[in-house]
Amino acid sequence: MQWTKVLGLGLGAAALLGLGIILGHFAIPKKANSPAPSDLDLELLETVMGQLDAHRIRENLRELSREPHLASSPRDEDLVQLLLQRWKDPESGLDSAEAFTYEVLLSFPSQEQPNVVDIAMTLPPPPTVGPTGDIIHSCHRTEENVTGEQGGPDVVQPYAAYAPSGTPQGLLVYANRGTEEDFKELQTQGIKLEGTIALTRYGGVGRGAKAVNAAKHGVAGVLVYTDPADINDGLSLPNETFPNSWYLPPSGVERGSYYKYFGDPLTPYLPAIPSSFRLDLANVSGFPPIPTQPIVCSLGCPVNVSVYNRLELRNSSNVLGIIRGAVEPDRYVLYGNHRDSWVHGAVDPSSGTAVLLELSRVLGTLLKKGTWRPRRSIVFASWGAEEFGLIGSTEFTEEFFNKLQERTVAYINVDIAVFANATLRVQGTPPVQSVVFSATKEIRSPGPGDLSIYDNWIRYFNRSSPVYGLVPSLGSLGAGSDYAPFIHFLGISSMDIAYTYDRSKTSARIYPTYHTAFDTFDYVDKFLDPGFSSHQAVARTAGSIILRLSDSFFLPLKVSDYSETLRSFLQAAQQDLGALLEQHSISLGPLVTAVEKFEAAAAALGQRISALQKGSPDPLQVRMLNDQLMLLERTFLNPRAFPEERYYSHVLWATRTGSVATFPGLSNACSRARDTASGSEAWAEVQRQLSIVVTALEGAAATLRPVADL
Amino acid sequence: MQWTKVLGLGLGAAALLGLGIILGHFAIPKKANSPAPSDLDLELLETVMGQLDAHRIRENLRELSREPHLASSPRDEDLVQLLLQRWKDPESGLDSAEAFTYEVLLSFPSQEQPNVVDIAMTLPPPPTVGPTGDIIHSCHRTEENVTGEQGGPDVVQPYAAYAPSGTPQGLLVYANRGTEEDFKELQTQGIKLEGTIALTRYGGVGRGAKAVNAAKHGVAGVLVYTDPADINDGLSLPNETFPNSWYLPPSGVERGSYYKYFGDPLTPYLPAIPSSFRLDLANVSGFPPIPTQPIVCSLGCPVNVSVYNRLELRNSSNVLGIIRGAVEPDRYVLYGNHRDSWVHGAVDPSSGTAVLLELSRVLGTLLKKGTWRPRRSIVFASWGAEEFGLIGSTEFTEEFFNKLQERTVAYINVDIAVFANATLRVQGTPPVQSVVFSATKEIRSPGPGDLSIYDNWIRYFNRSSPVYGLVPSLGSLGAGSDYAPFIHFLGISSMDIAYTYDRSKTSARIYPTYHTAFDTFDYVDKFLDPGFSSHQAVARTAGSIILRLSDSFFLPLKVSDYSETLRSFLQAAQQDLGALLEQHSISLGPLVTAVEKFEAAAAALGQRISALQKGSPDPLQVRMLNDQLMLLERTFLNPRAFPEERYYSHVLWATRTGSVATFPGLSNACSRARDTASGSEAWAEVQRQLSIVVTALEGAAATLRPVADL
Repeated sequence: MQWTKVLGLGLGAAALLGLGIILGHFAIPKKANSPAPSDLDLELLETVMGQLDAHRIRENLRELSREPHLASSPRDEDLVQLLLQRWKDPESGLDSAEAFTYEVLLSFPSQEQPNVVDIAMTLPPPPTVGPTGDIIHSCHRTEENVTGEQGGPDVVQPYAAYAPSGTPQGLLVYANRGTEEDFKELQTQGIKLEGTIALTRYGGVGRGAKAVNAAKHGVAGVLVYTDPADINDGLSLPNETFPNSWYLPPSGVERGSYYKYFGDPLTPYLPAIPSSFRLDLANVSGFPPIPTQPIVCSLGCPVNVSVYNRLELRNSSNVLGIIRGAVEPDRYVLYGNHRDSWVHGAVDPSSGTAVLLELSRVLGTLLKKGTWRPRRSIVFASWGAEEFGLIGSTEFTEEFFNKLQERTVAYINVDIAVFANATLRVQGTPPVQSVVFSATKEIRSPGPGDLSIYDNWIRYFNRSSPVYGLVPSLGSLGAGSDYAPFIHFLGISSMDIAYTYDRSKTSARIYPTYHTAFDTFDYVDKFLDPGFSSHQAVARTAGSIILRLSDSFFLPLKVSDYSETLRSFLQAAQQDLGALLEQHSISLGPLVTAVEKFEAAAAALGQRISALQKGSPDPLQVRMLNDQLMLLERTFLNPRAFPEERYYSHVLWATRTGSVATFPGLSNACSRARDTASGSEAWAEVQRQLSIVVTALEGAAATLRPVADL
Repeated sequence: MQWTKVLGLGLGAAALLGLGIILGHFAIPKKANSPAPSDLDLELLETVMGQLDAHRIRENLRELSREPHLASSPRDEDLVQLLLQRWKDPESGLDSAEAFTYEVLLSFPSQEQPNVVDIAMTLPPPPTVGPTGDIIHSCHRTEENVTGEQGGPDVVQPYAAYAPSGTPQGLLVYANRGTEEDFKELQTQGIKLEGTIALTRYGGVGRGAKAVNAAKHGVAGVLVYTDPADINDGLSLPNETFPNSWYLPPSGVERGSYYKYFGDPLTPYLPAIPSSFRLDLANVSGFPPIPTQPIVCSLGCPVNVSVYNRLELRNSSNVLGIIRGAVEPDRYVLYGNHRDSWVHGAVDPSSGTAVLLELSRVLGTLLKKGTWRPRRSIVFASWGAEEFGLIGSTEFTEEFFNKLQERTVAYINVDIAVFANATLRVQGTPPVQSVVFSATKEIRSPGPGDLSIYDNWIRYFNRSSPVYGLVPSLGSLGAGSDYAPFIHFLGISSMDIAYTYDRSKTSARIYPTYHTAFDTFDYVDKFLDPGFSSHQAVARTAGSIILRLSDSFFLPLKVSDYSETLRSFLQAAQQDLGALLEQHSISLGPLVTAVEKFEAAAAALGQRISALQKGSPDPLQVRMLNDQLMLLERTFLNPRAFPEERYYSHVLWATRTGSVATFPGLSNACSRARDTASGSEAWAEVQRQLSIVVTALEGAAATLRPVADL
């Protein structure tokens, strides 16, 4: 221990003070330890379930959605302060809370020069598509002020964030949903697309993709509208819509980001702190290539589109609050939601934030009473600028990449807490299934009857599991909310929780007032969740999951549940690609072996844990097994697997564009290779993708085997 | 715990048997635990030091170097068996040992049609460089059989591995060391290079780079020779050289790999298991572009070069042996060396393997006595096919990437254990400095007098440290041996240990018989290390380091020693690039802040550990702090930092080509941007590289701060 002596000398007397501070620092967790760092306390769990209060969630929502709070707006900043104040409350606060600010590129319409879409007099068909004649109709620039909340300077005009400005004029062509196929179909029909304005409806593909597809055919501008058939179950009259029902009023227009990727567009893979290198605007990719504007009208005639969107560097903050773990403070259970909305955002995202605040209040109160401190740390997060492309959460993962990747047990996302009142809906990776099931079996469903959330859920979403029989089915995680950087970029087991529709009662693509000025407190209070019992159900579900993940001796992540997924991916590959692959002399044998090895290793690990649970295992033994559970998801990451797909590194959950429901890299590569000759680059890529998956699965199995095995 | 019930049902009765096996399995470490998992035992350390036997190392070396054992040759396979047998020995074996085999692309000269270099009659200077006249001299195809060991079918002809076959003919042009500058100089002198054969000498640049540089000027073939001035202190007569001295006989020729990258050329980033995707030969990059051959003669005249090298897929094995840790079996102290040689390879690599076998014998014997089991696991590795480009170790890191990255405490490499007898020489990253110092202060130096290895070392290599004063200086890790994938690709703290020259007594570029058929047992026994006391010194140094890393309660990795490196990189940037960067409006301010944050966090962590060491800290607390120490090196990895540099991801130790001794990405980018205008792509890359370093340092500091801090 020579160096400690040398260090002592080198640091001199100042170290004494430092030592005192440190000793003091370490005294705190020891004191806090005193409530006994035991396994999950079911009584405590019951207490928490009982304290999560629907009325308080309602009051949170009222405050959060009182004013529009577009990312980086003054009201958004006010909410940063509100969160900080709540999380620092001496009575019910967390151990610490702090705002982290990034300087990010956002896009806004001009206040002085609003975006305009004018319908001109019908012109004879071209030769010349040029400036059009007299204006016969101007589209609404704002939504109708139906409840008094759709007016005022803070209600941002409907617009397509990141669409370039420009004033294209041309004939209006109806292009359905603006998919590649839609434009090809128009071409097949002999319709000239060059110089036209494409009218598209929301849905089918991502927002930005409509403009990308259109531009490939020379289209000059894109309009996007919400079809009542897609969102309102066909209803559209004022007396059939909000404030008389949950349906979108005729003037409602969905705003949204049209950026292809996520994260700050100027700083991919780098945190958007002021000093970070920023791309030149000329080198930014992923913005829509042509002016684009969401509108309400849908006529067919010449049209003048004027888009005056501006890109601006703005400050946007995440707020983080932490409850320090008593035993393993370096293990983080991360729970988050975004804070920014397009307008008032009562549903999106404030329903989630209202739940977040209630959860942090109840856990904070327990903490301040001194009767409880979780085994692991709990981190609450309020993300900024999600609506522009998951920017706050992405920058956070870029800034603290290693720390998060090494220590995060799981990420729980509750964005829109309640879409509707029918049932729970969970998206997540397989290891979280068991903890969600455990939690929901113990909580009463808000509806009539005496069902658990689990028993109600299974009525709406279910599947037949080869292992468990009929169980609720979890969806898989795309990139629809802030979980995306956690699962795809960091490989952290993630989930997204909400209450949602009875699909037999509505075919709405999403809740009707989504991203409009009609998504207000009254909308939630009167139509979406009167009584806030669904909000409470989500709070209880999330709360139970947080406690189980943070307090259980063994992490309730069941890695063997990945076996079912792998088996189903493998079967799809065998059934739907096997013959094709064989034609090209590509064997699925190594994949079969790898899946089998994974299954065996995962099952054996489960048995080792069960065996240990029967005794009183050594804390270090538990820690080692928990590390295996926690880190499994990381083994599926390969940052070199999909070099074109920004952030997507998870070889099981990357975007699948191929039709076969198997490993995405394999599916996509096969779909591209299908019509090429053996020996083509495309077939080499199939083989490369297959090897990437095999290596990942073999590597995953290796991490699950006993740690001292070769 | 609902899912355990379900699992129990699902698995049925078979689980009972499994459970029994598992309980049995877990009983073993508990039993082994009994020798009390305490802190490093200094008495045990002394015992081990005493048992490491010079004579046994000598006998190991005799056996290992008895026959040529080129990678994948039958004798190489015999040595795989020898290692397995030793490591499975019931008396002195490890807990388990296994061979892992890869199918890799190697390159060999043809046995039927040896490579030939003929000197033709001098022709008049060109116009036509064409087939040349009568052969006046043929270069030796093999080395002279001086000791009876340079003949026979297993002595591979000197050749340039991975050089393409071909029979170029042309005028011989002397091109010094074949650097870019050397060829430019020839061009400046008006010498036509097109169609010539370039004669170059070893040194200055990598082997393959000579051919790459030559081909850019139209050169048709490259010859490489060893200049006696570079290797033999100018001596070259038979009576001055081996077997009469350690100098290379006149007929000696250095073999070597001319591949630019490392790892199996066909499977970058994938393990070379049989099923892995392999690049088409047409798509392989990094081979020399023109026929190349190492030779002994150095005349100036027309020359015919005939290279008949062949690429072959061969099986090559790593052998791994493990001592399971008693307390933290999931923490690996990894110690390795390659096994394959070019010919007998007594020095390279068998001197290291002889030490490896003696270390594993002594520790294995202790283990079998039942009086000792290390706290953490110790993994011994014998790598295959290093000479062809670190292939075995690289494939191993590709196959077990996550497992190794999550769990490896440090990698210790002893390749050539003894270059010469004067002094220790260590290359490594800053955190290993302290453990090397601690170890070497306690071991007597083999030379005359009563110095410790440390005190002897400091006489040959030293520097003035701002923190410690005069200390031995560690070199930094390039890619010269199997540590390369561990530090550059996985970010594992690594070191390379050897005994080496007194530079005042020789200017040899490397020991003279390097990669020749004269590198034999007698060479070592008579000239390099008679008595094997330097081998013993290396064994003791490595043994002490292994024990300190595997048995110490707190990991002896001193992360604050990175502060000196960062500070010196920063100062170099400020002094040598500051003005230039300012001209281009690039501030080093964020880098200064990041370095300061790192320094503060590292110092504070050191103080927390010191404070804890005074008490009796909780095992979990120790584990958490050790994780911070172990994982620090990982935070410097960024797989997207240098997309062109295969495997190089460590932002502090990637290859530096720029002249300023600062962060390599910054240094290289500045060197490329220097002569371009502000706003160029090259200057954007400087800014990007600066942000990459700042993000890495800020992220590193974040991982060193108290784990529950935001």
